[in-house]
Amino acid sequence: MSQREFEFIDWLMQCFSSTGRDITRGIGDDMAVMMVNGEQVLITTDVLLEGVHFDLSRATPRQVGYKAMACSLSDCAAMAALPWCAVVGAAIPRSWNMDQARELTQGLQKAAKTYDCPLVGGDTTSWDNRLVVNVTMLARAQDVEPVLRSGAQVGDVIFVTGELGGSLAGRHLEFVPRVNEARRLAKWVHLHAMIDLSDGLAGDLGHICQGSRVGAIINKNAIPICVSALKSDNPLKAALADGEDFELLFTVSAKDAERLQHGRVEETFVKLTPIGEIVAGSGEILLRDETGKTQPLTYKGWEHHWGD
Amino acid sequence: MSQREFEFIDWLMQCFSSTGRDITRGIGDDMAVMMVNGEQVLITTDVLLEGVHFDLSRATPRQVGYKAMACSLSDCAAMAALPWCAVVGAAIPRSWNMDQARELTQGLQKAAKTYDCPLVGGDTTSWDNRLVVNVTMLARAQDVEPVLRSGAQVGDVIFVTGELGGSLAGRHLEFVPRVNEARRLAKWVHLHAMIDLSDGLAGDLGHICQGSRVGAIINKNAIPICVSALKSDNPLKAALADGEDFELLFTVSAKDAERLQHGRVEETFVKLTPIGEIVAGSGEILLRDETGKTQPLTYKGWEHHWGD
Repeated sequence: MSQREFEFIDWLMQCFSSTGRDITRGIGDDMAVMMVNGEQVLITTDVLLEGVHFDLSRATPRQVGYKAMACSLSDCAAMAALPWCAVVGAAIPRSWNMDQARELTQGLQKAAKTYDCPLVGGDTTSWDNRLVVNVTMLARAQDVEPVLRSGAQVGDVIFVTGELGGSLAGRHLEFVPRVNEARRLAKWVHLHAMIDLSDGLAGDLGHICQGSRVGAIINKNAIPICVSALKSDNPLKAALADGEDFELLFTVSAKDAERLQHGRVEETFVKLTPIGEIVAGSGEILLRDETGKTQPLTYKGWEHHWGD
Repeated sequence: MSQREFEFIDWLMQCFSSTGRDITRGIGDDMAVMMVNGEQVLITTDVLLEGVHFDLSRATPRQVGYKAMACSLSDCAAMAALPWCAVVGAAIPRSWNMDQARELTQGLQKAAKTYDCPLVGGDTTSWDNRLVVNVTMLARAQDVEPVLRSGAQVGDVIFVTGELGGSLAGRHLEFVPRVNEARRLAKWVHLHAMIDLSDGLAGDLGHICQGSRVGAIINKNAIPICVSALKSDNPLKAALADGEDFELLFTVSAKDAERLQHGRVEETFVKLTPIGEIVAGSGEILLRDETGKTQPLTYKGWEHHWGD
């Protein structure tokens, strides 16, 4: 994100940061958290724009529909929440035929079925313009306290799921939102802080560090890099800054880290990699090489918002 | 709406009509209704597109922000639900400056404050394209059973609030969503069916008739026409088909109609006009003139969706 969007979001947060009246957590995390009769209900919204988040010459309408739902499902995962239902707002190019509209809907539906998160409402309009798909999703906490960005503690070990980088080669259209993995993890250990990697490791770890008022050190050689990123000119940069990995980044105590690494994790569970630790600080992230030398992490997250 | 959108929505409904698992009412009403620990929570989403729902050469960003919230507030009114909180997805033209973005936000905020419905989350992205604003709103039933489109009964009297027609002269940007009026009405009388007038009287009464499997007769001379529509070439057509009045259309028993017309309604309460009655049928609407002669109502609602 550029400085400009940060400013706008900061200003929005001042205007809107609404807690009280059964709203326990407003803007500034992956989802807002509300109380209904003693139960925590969460909400998130994600806008996908043609030419920004997908390219219709390389993605099918079905893939776009799937991605639109999967982005919000990934927000649920980031809070360890159970997806409940969703509504979709769509602006459809007038040039589309019914088959394309159907395909888009089938993509939404595929994700809805896989994650048992039905679409319960929608508003579609056609226009002489590019495709816009906005999914808003509700989730429920159901026995798992929502995991915020702000709970990281000095001494925590930082983990990521799966492998990072190279999402633009196609993975960003068909990724697996880590909904089930997040719920399992939250039941195994005490997740102090969590986020899904949408802006890139560097940017999203920055959100955790800022939200938790801590710093972080990442071990350069520990970062799990995806095969498609290994082929690129700068695999490390790809893993740190490509964005749209939609893997989970989380922190746990050293004791819980030990349990995750050496405990009885099922063989089929997603790969979990410790990549560094939380240190005292105020948002700074250092990258440590094999000799122990550190340098400030300067790669910024994927800058598609308010881009320059 | 054109035939094309009806087909698409019908198809969507077949795919998605999801009840069960705490979802008591899915696509097909003004809001979906869900149960959380015994409390009814409602959700709606509305997409506003530049060049379709507003024209930035005639509307300020502040007006657009207000309208975006007010459309969803009007959906809450249509169900007699109490607005609770909202999230906004926005695609902002890259050509905008911060002042324009701020103004948009202030418009959203104005409606949020007036109706005590805070914005709790959002997703904004800039692009080289036109403004899109998508508001998703949650509401709570709180002591008032949600009023559906499907409850109209033969013999009911049909009422509208306020005056109709001529919304495009500017009223569509600054209308009063009838949230408070709907809650008051629901506590006075038993509202059998209700909808907000977004597509025009003819189209929206059609939704009630189809949803309730009944017909309707409208008294031509009874329709309350707005001053701005009276100046047009065809004031009746304006009142029937302009759309975006955002007044309420509802049906009550003859006994309750009597109470509404002759009971102690506060003088400051919005104007309530009986315009016709529900009759046996399957969706047909007749227009009755002063001599008692009827003709089928053929004006279609405002066809901005999937336009021709």
